[in-house]
Amino acid sequence: MSENKATIASYNDYQTKLQKIADVRNTLAVLSWDQETYLPEKGAAFRGQQITTLSTIAHEMYIAPELEQLLQTLHGAEGLDAIQTKNIALSKEDYDKNKKYPAAFVAEMSQVTNESYHAWIKARKANDYSLFAPSLTKMIALKKQETDILGYEGHPYNALLNEYEKGADVIQLDKVFNDVKTALSPLLAQIEQKAPVQKDFLHLHYQRDRQWQFGIDLLKEMGYDLTAGRQDISEHPFTTSFNPQDVRVTTRIDENDFGNMTWSCIHEGGHALYEQGLPTAQYGLPCGEATSLGIHESQSRLWENNVGRSLGFWQHQYPRLQRLFPENLSAVPLSGFYHAINKVQPSLIRTEADELTYHFHIMIRYEIEKGLMDGSIAVKDLHHTWNEYYRQYLHVTVPDDVHGVLQDIHWSHGSFGYFPTYSLGSFYAAQFFAAAQQQITGLDTAIAAGDYSSLLQWLRQHIHPFGRYYTSNELCAKVTGKPLEFGYFLDYAKKKYSDIYGL
Amino acid sequence: MSENKATIASYNDYQTKLQKIADVRNTLAVLSWDQETYLPEKGAAFRGQQITTLSTIAHEMYIAPELEQLLQTLHGAEGLDAIQTKNIALSKEDYDKNKKYPAAFVAEMSQVTNESYHAWIKARKANDYSLFAPSLTKMIALKKQETDILGYEGHPYNALLNEYEKGADVIQLDKVFNDVKTALSPLLAQIEQKAPVQKDFLHLHYQRDRQWQFGIDLLKEMGYDLTAGRQDISEHPFTTSFNPQDVRVTTRIDENDFGNMTWSCIHEGGHALYEQGLPTAQYGLPCGEATSLGIHESQSRLWENNVGRSLGFWQHQYPRLQRLFPENLSAVPLSGFYHAINKVQPSLIRTEADELTYHFHIMIRYEIEKGLMDGSIAVKDLHHTWNEYYRQYLHVTVPDDVHGVLQDIHWSHGSFGYFPTYSLGSFYAAQFFAAAQQQITGLDTAIAAGDYSSLLQWLRQHIHPFGRYYTSNELCAKVTGKPLEFGYFLDYAKKKYSDIYGL
Repeated sequence: MSENKATIASYNDYQTKLQKIADVRNTLAVLSWDQETYLPEKGAAFRGQQITTLSTIAHEMYIAPELEQLLQTLHGAEGLDAIQTKNIALSKEDYDKNKKYPAAFVAEMSQVTNESYHAWIKARKANDYSLFAPSLTKMIALKKQETDILGYEGHPYNALLNEYEKGADVIQLDKVFNDVKTALSPLLAQIEQKAPVQKDFLHLHYQRDRQWQFGIDLLKEMGYDLTAGRQDISEHPFTTSFNPQDVRVTTRIDENDFGNMTWSCIHEGGHALYEQGLPTAQYGLPCGEATSLGIHESQSRLWENNVGRSLGFWQHQYPRLQRLFPENLSAVPLSGFYHAINKVQPSLIRTEADELTYHFHIMIRYEIEKGLMDGSIAVKDLHHTWNEYYRQYLHVTVPDDVHGVLQDIHWSHGSFGYFPTYSLGSFYAAQFFAAAQQQITGLDTAIAAGDYSSLLQWLRQHIHPFGRYYTSNELCAKVTGKPLEFGYFLDYAKKKYSDIYGL
Repeated sequence: MSENKATIASYNDYQTKLQKIADVRNTLAVLSWDQETYLPEKGAAFRGQQITTLSTIAHEMYIAPELEQLLQTLHGAEGLDAIQTKNIALSKEDYDKNKKYPAAFVAEMSQVTNESYHAWIKARKANDYSLFAPSLTKMIALKKQETDILGYEGHPYNALLNEYEKGADVIQLDKVFNDVKTALSPLLAQIEQKAPVQKDFLHLHYQRDRQWQFGIDLLKEMGYDLTAGRQDISEHPFTTSFNPQDVRVTTRIDENDFGNMTWSCIHEGGHALYEQGLPTAQYGLPCGEATSLGIHESQSRLWENNVGRSLGFWQHQYPRLQRLFPENLSAVPLSGFYHAINKVQPSLIRTEADELTYHFHIMIRYEIEKGLMDGSIAVKDLHHTWNEYYRQYLHVTVPDDVHGVLQDIHWSHGSFGYFPTYSLGSFYAAQFFAAAQQQITGLDTAIAAGDYSSLLQWLRQHIHPFGRYYTSNELCAKVTGKPLEFGYFLDYAKKKYSDIYGL
């Protein structure tokens, strides 16, 4: 065999191995999907056991020495094309990173995560942060160890940020969240001076089946391929992908909250369109995986907010919605509806926040995580720190821990560095959408006519097909000509809320 | 460690290994369930690949030398209880049997099965048996090889029968099917003299949702635990078990055929009650698995026929059914309904046959399989043989191959020896039900009052909890005091059809 032929043969071996691992991981995703949608109550214990067994199998397949050897052989080898070279580089990076974790650390992390999750549950029940603090202390200590294991330049938090958003660091994020503080705070202050928007009619009775039909129709119109996916009901909406030909979403329906189902449909639909747009030929390989959490979130938020909360979108959809729910909406004009669904109101709970105040919730978490990592914030008094931040930035008084520091599951799972990707998603979305508006002739007109095909086509061309070939920073520069800039979101928000609130 | 302690430790190892294999196999069952119920169209190709990967993993886990060693150590070891000893014996038997197959044979069988299945599809499309015959010839040659690989006493077909029903052989089945011929033929002839029963009203329009509700209610009333199972829709109804706490059934609904959904619900419900009644503590081990196909089928048929087509059952259920579908049934008296659902009519298609003529369909397949195995029937002329048997025993003329020899998928899959278990199921059911009637005070009265709890309790005590601890023959003797006797089915049929047809 010539050297190139041997390289190609090794590459094929590598690809087969990764695809088999993907088969097992995607099977785990099927088990989880079933667990959230259709699993009968008593099946939970055995399902947990099944998931443990399959996870162990996937892990053992991944750490097998044959894969490591192949990666060593192929890393830097000639005779591979650009995508193949990138796959090998990323797989090697993943593999080497995984290898850094000592077994003892993994075992301890697993135990502390379990303990901390249960402590969080208990603390929520008792509405008492002090019951969570001891576990959280252990968790933080372990996460600090992890930053040493992973290595970092600059701030230790960078090591964790990099896990969720490759290339993100405190320099970028300090700047972004400083912009949130300095630029969004005045906007929020202006809005708070205005008369509150009326939105009670969104909480009248919206019949279940008609909501479902409206949501499914929206997904179809967005271009979600229902022959390569499906929607079901679950407690918390989510998107899961088993491969680009089988990408499923879930939603929930609250008959007294019209918005709950609608924007969860559009949001998950955005995630799902991204997954359906990933290259099938790269199944199981890095270039077949989503770029990053931030980019994933940019896709859901672009559809949810830039499209799904725009006036143009509802110019087309609202008459249909009125026909579906005449008893609730026939007396509400489009403008009233549009204002209602974009009402800005500082609140306590992140997941219920509007598009503007949302980023204060994230900024607060970012500051806290950074402070926990460099020791400038103590775990013991975290609830006080939390409450003080909420008072300062959102002007709300946190009445108790459940409505404060205990509201999110993330820390109990050891997910530090995750929160910022939510805001990054919105900011990438604003920058991408601005580029789309510039590059697609008549985009706003098309959206106002219920035609989203040119937008999807643009996303399919510029964002979806690359997987991890580019980092989020690289992708952003490639698509928009610039690195991530908060200004796009600021412009979008200023324009939108000036119109709505008459600023 | 004392010898006993070491034995127990090895047994625990063995149990853990088998349970992990069961986790993977049950995961495969989840993938298949999803494939038949909710898989989006385009997901099929990747799903096939996922199933192949998982099957290979399960197979590799099973043939790992560690398991073989444990079985050798534990086989005949002291210090195990009766169930543990039986588990080891059966696992060793399974393992040794699996080991008999040379890799080359397995590969060839897999290839020929694939070829033969596609030839069958093609032959059905062209309605031409001759397109299937060449593949079937290869398949039969392989199945003969398989009988040599497995070994047998007496007739080579015994080796295959034993695969589906341990202990079954041509001596037992010749006797049973001879009884079908000699005892059921005269009964059938008598019925054919009588005026045909009217059953058109079963094919009026029965609204989908109301059918679904009726079916779910029946399942609940039978005692099927919907917190440890669920019902969904699929093209062909089936039962699948992931463990006794998660046993799922499917049904189909034909709005112009009331019977389709109803008896598929009751039939699958019978299978599901059995699976829910298997011992959870024996998960993954032989004593946690169904005794045999015949016993599994006895459970579905006991509920479907002995209960679900009885007059007593409908004395309670029919008024409710009439209230659900007054437009179709208010003018039909119970007796008319009861006669209609038990109409005897010789027909061409096995799966559409009534409870009586069904066994002629099976007997014909049994005779043919036996003849193919000992060479007394040639593959080439099989369609003529088939048609001649149908003329002789069922007095129907087979118009073409699709309505004849090509109707069942089994042979294309290499499933020879499977068909007899369907009849065995009915005959075991009759014998079990007779025992239940004798042992349960007031059973018929209870059923006529819609109370099936004493029956389920009896099955849960006498049939369900043993798994493979007993063979079907042993179980039958234990429960009824006798080996399988066709007389129970004959008595049941004679009584039933004499009443209905006034013989």
